[in-house]
Amino acid sequence: MLKRYLPILEWGRTYNRGVLTDDLMAAVIVTIMLIPQSLAYALLAGLPPVIGLYASILPLILYAVFGTSRTLAVGPVAVISLMTASAAGAVAAQGTAQYLEAAITLAMLSGIMLAVLGLLRAGFLANLLSHPVISGFITASGILIATSQLRHIFGIEAGGDNWPEMIGSLASAIGTINVWTLAIGIPAMLFLFWVRKGAKPALLRLGLADRAAGMTAKAGPVVAVAMTIFAVIAFDLADRGVALVGPIPQGLPPITMPSTDLALIEKLWVPALLISIIGFVESVSVAQTLAAKRRQRISPDQELVGLGAANIASAFSGGYPVTGGFARSAVNFDAGAQTPAAGAYTAIGIALATLFLTPLLFNLPIATLAATIIVAVLSLVDLKTPGQLWRYSKADFAAHIVTIGVTLLAGVELGVIAGVAASLLLYLWRASRPHAAIVGRVPETEHFRNVDRHSVFTVPHVLSIRIDEALTYLNARWLEEYVLEEVADRPAVRHVILMFSAVNEVDASGLESLEAINHRLGDGGIGLHLSEVKGPVMDRLKRTQFVEELNGKVFLTQDRAFAEVSLDTGEPPASVDHYLARGLI
Amino acid sequence: MLKRYLPILEWGRTYNRGVLTDDLMAAVIVTIMLIPQSLAYALLAGLPPVIGLYASILPLILYAVFGTSRTLAVGPVAVISLMTASAAGAVAAQGTAQYLEAAITLAMLSGIMLAVLGLLRAGFLANLLSHPVISGFITASGILIATSQLRHIFGIEAGGDNWPEMIGSLASAIGTINVWTLAIGIPAMLFLFWVRKGAKPALLRLGLADRAAGMTAKAGPVVAVAMTIFAVIAFDLADRGVALVGPIPQGLPPITMPSTDLALIEKLWVPALLISIIGFVESVSVAQTLAAKRRQRISPDQELVGLGAANIASAFSGGYPVTGGFARSAVNFDAGAQTPAAGAYTAIGIALATLFLTPLLFNLPIATLAATIIVAVLSLVDLKTPGQLWRYSKADFAAHIVTIGVTLLAGVELGVIAGVAASLLLYLWRASRPHAAIVGRVPETEHFRNVDRHSVFTVPHVLSIRIDEALTYLNARWLEEYVLEEVADRPAVRHVILMFSAVNEVDASGLESLEAINHRLGDGGIGLHLSEVKGPVMDRLKRTQFVEELNGKVFLTQDRAFAEVSLDTGEPPASVDHYLARGLI
Repeated sequence: MLKRYLPILEWGRTYNRGVLTDDLMAAVIVTIMLIPQSLAYALLAGLPPVIGLYASILPLILYAVFGTSRTLAVGPVAVISLMTASAAGAVAAQGTAQYLEAAITLAMLSGIMLAVLGLLRAGFLANLLSHPVISGFITASGILIATSQLRHIFGIEAGGDNWPEMIGSLASAIGTINVWTLAIGIPAMLFLFWVRKGAKPALLRLGLADRAAGMTAKAGPVVAVAMTIFAVIAFDLADRGVALVGPIPQGLPPITMPSTDLALIEKLWVPALLISIIGFVESVSVAQTLAAKRRQRISPDQELVGLGAANIASAFSGGYPVTGGFARSAVNFDAGAQTPAAGAYTAIGIALATLFLTPLLFNLPIATLAATIIVAVLSLVDLKTPGQLWRYSKADFAAHIVTIGVTLLAGVELGVIAGVAASLLLYLWRASRPHAAIVGRVPETEHFRNVDRHSVFTVPHVLSIRIDEALTYLNARWLEEYVLEEVADRPAVRHVILMFSAVNEVDASGLESLEAINHRLGDGGIGLHLSEVKGPVMDRLKRTQFVEELNGKVFLTQDRAFAEVSLDTGEPPASVDHYLARGLI
Repeated sequence: MLKRYLPILEWGRTYNRGVLTDDLMAAVIVTIMLIPQSLAYALLAGLPPVIGLYASILPLILYAVFGTSRTLAVGPVAVISLMTASAAGAVAAQGTAQYLEAAITLAMLSGIMLAVLGLLRAGFLANLLSHPVISGFITASGILIATSQLRHIFGIEAGGDNWPEMIGSLASAIGTINVWTLAIGIPAMLFLFWVRKGAKPALLRLGLADRAAGMTAKAGPVVAVAMTIFAVIAFDLADRGVALVGPIPQGLPPITMPSTDLALIEKLWVPALLISIIGFVESVSVAQTLAAKRRQRISPDQELVGLGAANIASAFSGGYPVTGGFARSAVNFDAGAQTPAAGAYTAIGIALATLFLTPLLFNLPIATLAATIIVAVLSLVDLKTPGQLWRYSKADFAAHIVTIGVTLLAGVELGVIAGVAASLLLYLWRASRPHAAIVGRVPETEHFRNVDRHSVFTVPHVLSIRIDEALTYLNARWLEEYVLEEVADRPAVRHVILMFSAVNEVDASGLESLEAINHRLGDGGIGLHLSEVKGPVMDRLKRTQFVEELNGKVFLTQDRAFAEVSLDTGEPPASVDHYLARGLI
């Protein structure tokens, strides 16, 4: 029980020197990668860059204690940073103490929500985000993020709450471009694009081993950071209007308290919930992918607890919402991390950076960080999915396009909500029209098949309906309409047999519909029978009055049901030959 | 096409004198019943009594044109009146012009929403209200309504926004009871209770025919109205503090305009949506029940249009939200109404009442109307359902109790929302854990059954999983977890066969999960195979890369799949006898 909530007790027992070496090695590589990323994502969230470092220390240690993934690397990520900017920007202006307080409070709320959902084992809520919605959301977020960072590349002032506004604002400020900033930003961006694809082959050609080349290529952003800092100093760019990171407070994260202002919490709880769910979905997908590669396991519900603890820790150490990131977890995995301890060592690395490295970052151009962000998020933009979805499923395509459209035009929060609502409505629409078929007997067999597809035997006074779906409240109304309409269409019908072979469940609404059908058919003098009811379904039906009040019988097989009720033609009894001749028995 | 949207064109063609007589007869009886009801429900909605009459004229005529039920009687109903009071009370004080404007605007918004949902054929949205939620909501509303009317019976001032507050308010004002009011209210209530059960048998004993006795008993409220008016005049109760209806403007409904104030509309749209959906569900249930009795049909989507038109008409003629009511529709049906024209004749009856009858109602005690309401709504309170639900389904019980609890403690709107949310969460929770089984071959057959329930044959390097559910985004994550965990549990597994015999659909999320499973199993050197894929599912899968990239084969039957992949034991090939001996072929 304790191990379920504290996975560290499990892997900690077998921790040894070999594992320590692997974890340390991975931690060094992830630390090098994480420093520029943390600064950049904090910038994207509208926060001072150092906040990104703060959010990469204590949260990692807490995740190491409570998380179930061996290789997930937690910290600030692009989409969550954008969502933080959107939520905090709605309650305060960037750069104010209130804005920072809002970001910290978002981390707190999100942490509490994640932990509570985890303790309630409510990870299933993440199912509300279908793949088309997630991919649409990430594509649109990528476009929004890249667009929002262009101003730093151009060295201009621009804003906008949605994509058309952002583009308009950029276009109208294009005259004030700072060429020195552009001279930093464009090469940095091109270099980083090249690093993604071209650096590894180049390093291989230089004679590095495959794994070493791959790892070294991950240090590309650090090289860009170092080179642009050097350029700023060499060409005295600070005086030429290039925006720099500037002074970063040196030292470990301060202890901060999230706000307890109820008015603020009321404004932030919806964005915090969306941040929690999006963050959880992103994190758990990454964790599952990596765990499967080594045939390990994660527990989604405990992941909620782990991420919750990480976010609460972030709130108390001056950070903002964090989650498991795709790129850095993959690097952690490839670098050979064996246990969550690697994350804790990364945290120590980042802490050392805040103690000793921050003065070096004074001259880092903002444009370099913007270039890092743009290159990272453009790889998230996926333009192939819409076409694939269109071919595969129009409903999924619709949910995808709604998500992209609303996210671009009305922002990230409404985008997620619209996507979830669209998926759910389409699902409910389909669920409200389940499949059922009028069936008849395949001649000279005991099988019953759809009358529309097979040449089968039926009699006018018996209507056999096979229901291909569990009866729940979403289709209970349909069931009533369907059965009663089919009966209304056939004035000769005296018996209805519902074939329950595929009915896995009947909820209270389904039961009530069956009772209503029974009652209404009874009013019209029509018998209602059931056949092939599954054991568990029958057990529950027996606990009710339904079977007793049934205006007909429950038959073990459809064949028996059909044979027996076909005999009741409402005509005077005839000889056995009469029925045999008609195939009734 | 035109007939679909104007059902009057259908039944109007065959209208004749016989039908006219039946409809007129029914209209007279419904009119007599509707007058006190309309006055009472307007009182419940916090509106002047005459508004109830206004809401019973034009809406009935519009429903007769656009509605599809032959016998539904539209007008003010108890639950919708309570919801109107709650919504209008949130934006204005009772008795003000703003309050009336809010009620009219609610009718307008609700009418537009219903009509739009109808034109979009979105009647399926009513499925969101499960039977346990509806019955919980109606029970709790009945308790709230009855409690709210007690103050009129006692002749005291009391209020409260939720049930505990109402009870507290009544208790603290109990000292100021007006005994004369009580002397009217209690006998009226007892009389009306007796009328419900005892009047018909008494009339039968007096020698009336069965149907005549039943119809006469429905006039009970009119008798109560007449007797209490007489008592007021006879004992001069107006001077003794008994609250009376007072002056009612004489004449046809005025033409009114709903508000176009966006701030007001923003406050009212959520309650208007809830009023629309609750009203639609109530109405369509009644209409379906009555239609089934005569083997007639209604079209739920066109019913939305009909009710929408009725509500828009109500908004333009000084009324408030209306819907089809259970009691009056049943009376209309029993009285022999044949077509919606009966509703139009009822409207004429009510119009005549507003022209000539209103002066007679000056001395009608409010307590009589309150007694009418209490007796009507207490029959809606259903105390047996919770026990039945508890025995049948704990999830449905939970949704029922949540709805009752939230409605009583936080009001009708939050009650409905909480009920819908609870049902949906429980549904999603169940949908996220569908049924699947590890299967093995029943010896010497081609059948495959659950290994836990049957004695079947399996081999350690092949895992066969039968999935008993469509693969949608709600269970896509489960599928990944389930398959990968089962594989992680069995280190010997080299092949996984997914048996798709019960998979009716695979949406884009399900497809992506299958691709992820394929990819991850491939990483571990494990083959993934499908068997018994249904035709339509296979057709769609073929449009994707999935089948091509599948790390295994698609087999027509599970038997073929098992026979073929069992041969790949990973051991050096052995003789055919070896496999035969092990039952592998």
